[in-house]
Amino acid sequence: MRIAGIDPGLNATGYGIVDIDGDECRHVAHGVVRTRSADSLARRLVLIRDGLRKALAQWSPEVGAVEASFVGSNARSALALGHARAAAILALADSGLEVHEYAPAVIKTQVGGYGQSDKVQIAKMVAIELGLPEPPSPSDAADALAVAITHWAHTRLDGRI
Amino acid sequence: MRIAGIDPGLNATGYGIVDIDGDECRHVAHGVVRTRSADSLARRLVLIRDGLRKALAQWSPEVGAVEASFVGSNARSALALGHARAAAILALADSGLEVHEYAPAVIKTQVGGYGQSDKVQIAKMVAIELGLPEPPSPSDAADALAVAITHWAHTRLDGRI
Repeated sequence: MRIAGIDPGLNATGYGIVDIDGDECRHVAHGVVRTRSADSLARRLVLIRDGLRKALAQWSPEVGAVEASFVGSNARSALALGHARAAAILALADSGLEVHEYAPAVIKTQVGGYGQSDKVQIAKMVAIELGLPEPPSPSDAADALAVAITHWAHTRLDGRI
Repeated sequence: MRIAGIDPGLNATGYGIVDIDGDECRHVAHGVVRTRSADSLARRLVLIRDGLRKALAQWSPEVGAVEASFVGSNARSALALGHARAAAILALADSGLEVHEYAPAVIKTQVGGYGQSDKVQIAKMVAIELGLPEPPSPSDAADALAVAITHWAHTRLDGRI
């Protein structure tokens, strides 16, 4: 099964594609869709949605996973994140994919080994997990691969239960 | 010129269509797209986006206006609103419409006469402004008509300057 992980953000939305190959999780691709703050919100949402749609069409994943938002105390940031998340989720839905959500703490615990892992640590652990020669960059794409790996781990766990 | 006003919300997204006819603002249509909280977020966003797309295709407005979010102190509410707003804005963009945003206080001042108008007052003022026999309902649709009226008022003001 091929999994698309997405880490949504209004400035940069990362995506990561992995394949489940028996008991292994293999790296397929990763990348990022960027938008400029000078553009209108409508334009930025279209760019995120269409950029992800294009990547999903290219790599043909069978299921999607998105980072469930960490809702901090900043309502303005939460609003901006909500905008980006909706564009990403619509891209997955438009591509016919079921969307799974994983909380940031779950992803960090799964990939980083503990819940407080920073972005550098996450990228290093993603590289080790996928057997990459170096940490994937930018960090948004590494985070997206971490989301995909988390879905793989949960699917594997479900299969064993 | 025909204007589509939208009041986004995850449970209920109102839309209102008005025509500028000389110096008058005429009511064309209004309605609401509802989603169920039991459905997945992806499903709800698709329903909002596609429901609005359908209404926009039916009424063929030439420009869109959306309530710019009031960002309160509740980050969780802001995230949910961000999701709904993005689905609405993408529906407008997909329909080829330019998207204008108006702050809630601007809309309330424009339509209600003062910034603290409640929903009942807004619906009454919308009815008076558009010459409707009674306040439009539900309130989400009345609010959406208020957004459209606000865009009409601003356009008229710009034309005079």
